Amino acid sequence: MEDIYFDHAATTPMLEEVIKAMKPFYNQVFANPASSHLQGQKAASALEDARESVAEFIGAKNAEEVVFTSGGTEADNLALKGAAMAFSKKGKHIITSQIEHHAVLKSCEYLKKHLGFEITYLGVDQNGFVDPAELKEAVREDTVLISIMLANNEIGTIQPIKELASVARENNILFHTDAVQAAGQLKIDVNDLGVDLLSVSAHKFNGPKGIGALFVRKGVELIPQLSGGSQERKRRAGTANPAAAVGMARAAEIALKNLKKKSSKLNKLREYFISQLFSTFDNLKLNGPDSEKRLPANINIIKVRIN
Amino acid sequence: MEDIYFDHAATTPMLEEVIKAMKPFYNQVFANPASSHLQGQKAASALEDARESVAEFIGAKNAEEVVFTSGGTEADNLALKGAAMAFSKKGKHIITSQIEHHAVLKSCEYLKKHLGFEITYLGVDQNGFVDPAELKEAVREDTVLISIMLANNEIGTIQPIKELASVARENNILFHTDAVQAAGQLKIDVNDLGVDLLSVSAHKFNGPKGIGALFVRKGVELIPQLSGGSQERKRRAGTANPAAAVGMARAAEIALKNLKKKSSKLNKLREYFISQLFSTFDNLKLNGPDSEKRLPANINIIKVRIN
Repeated sequence: MEDIYFDHAATTPMLEEVIKAMKPFYNQVFANPASSHLQGQKAASALEDARESVAEFIGAKNAEEVVFTSGGTEADNLALKGAAMAFSKKGKHIITSQIEHHAVLKSCEYLKKHLGFEITYLGVDQNGFVDPAELKEAVREDTVLISIMLANNEIGTIQPIKELASVARENNILFHTDAVQAAGQLKIDVNDLGVDLLSVSAHKFNGPKGIGALFVRKGVELIPQLSGGSQERKRRAGTANPAAAVGMARAAEIALKNLKKKSSKLNKLREYFISQLFSTFDNLKLNGPDSEKRLPANINIIKVRIN
Repeated sequence: MEDIYFDHAATTPMLEEVIKAMKPFYNQVFANPASSHLQGQKAASALEDARESVAEFIGAKNAEEVVFTSGGTEADNLALKGAAMAFSKKGKHIITSQIEHHAVLKSCEYLKKHLGFEITYLGVDQNGFVDPAELKEAVREDTVLISIMLANNEIGTIQPIKELASVARENNILFHTDAVQAAGQLKIDVNDLGVDLLSVSAHKFNGPKGIGALFVRKGVELIPQLSGGSQERKRRAGTANPAAAVGMARAAEIALKNLKKKSSKLNKLREYFISQLFSTFDNLKLNGPDSEKRLPANINIIKVRIN
């Protein structure tokens, strides 16, 4: 019997096109993009082309708004800590939800413990939704940052980010969304969503592990969290990784091209699979929202105990 | 005319053996090592094997003392910020040198600016050497960390780390060394050197970009700098990257096997090249130390202006 891999929420295999696109950067165009010689310039040029593709993938108008990181966790850390620290003179209050990814929750704990921030954790309803009205009530004079994920990694809830972000904008507060789980399944447009910061990770949409990106809206200041060289326009130090960036870009291009068809197919497969499970087994319960408010590839089912 | 790449100090090409070793982890053994299913376990097992090889490369007796990072900069950041923050109750004074890599210097600035640490920057002599006697004098009651690089990335100076680390040990202070530039050119043995923390980066010894490691001596506590999941025994969050770890391990194995022969050959080539340059051109000056106290692959020459 052939294995079927059902854990695409945790990570995905790299596409052959992605593997192929990365190959020249291993030992041909391998120079350090920070080196001023011709070989360095070739690597830098590939890196900037990759940045354009990632910008397009998330609807950013300016490729300079894309900061490459080592993955979703680092992108979340840079967004939370970087923005909170940059705006700490204005205030030290952050609002997030109880069901964020650990990369967000633990970054909040770090800011609380080591830098004196206060955190408000919004509750969610039984399907995992954050209520924009509750967010509005939680806003304080000293709130500098709001972070609510685009879609939940466990139960697939797609949050009303546009409404949540508009609460932030009305109050002149930065808004971050962790789109790591959503990217590749949902169309992402940072300007339509109205967010200032947005995290994605390549390995969730058939790109390589070890690379992600943070969208940083033009004009938004961040304190770098990897201190060192001047890479990524002084927002993230460390030798750039053109191979991984090119792999992420290729995966993003393919994901963007196939998005509509793939999401629609996954939605149908999900509904079919759920209905088959429910008609075959008793006492099942689906966690999280129904159909269109749920990530296409997410199923979360438990067997209810009967005492 | 064929190009000759002379910038191995900035980065190196990946070896064919390294590229080959990484391939199965792109879309065959691609699962998340944090997933509990069989495919996740296979990836986790490869990751732990890679950790063993990196431990051997730096002379660590316990593979658990190796924390994979996204590169040398992150390893330096984790060492400096992680250790300083963990021991801040004991004191807030750090000693480093004026000629450290930016990843160390800027991490110190971050700790000073955002967390109230004081930094002492030791000067160096004309060949870039830190004097152990000066280090001894700089030690204070509240010194919690000393960070001096193993070999300088610009002028190749190999520091007397054993002597410097023993000053730290006598005073019960943690000692970190940035071995990023040295790894692959010098034999590294964390126990012989007597260091508590040591950073390396794979792309400096023909491994992939985007991965490095921090040696953390057993018992040394760190505050994680990437907050999130429980990866790397809670010392570095973020989905692990088995492909890159396996690539780093393969590069480390090859570097370790060839070290003696390669270093000796590079030493001879360096001396020959320097002598040829000096006999061909006038008014040259070699920056940094002579022969055995200099990294085998480092040459730093300027043309002296004659007014």
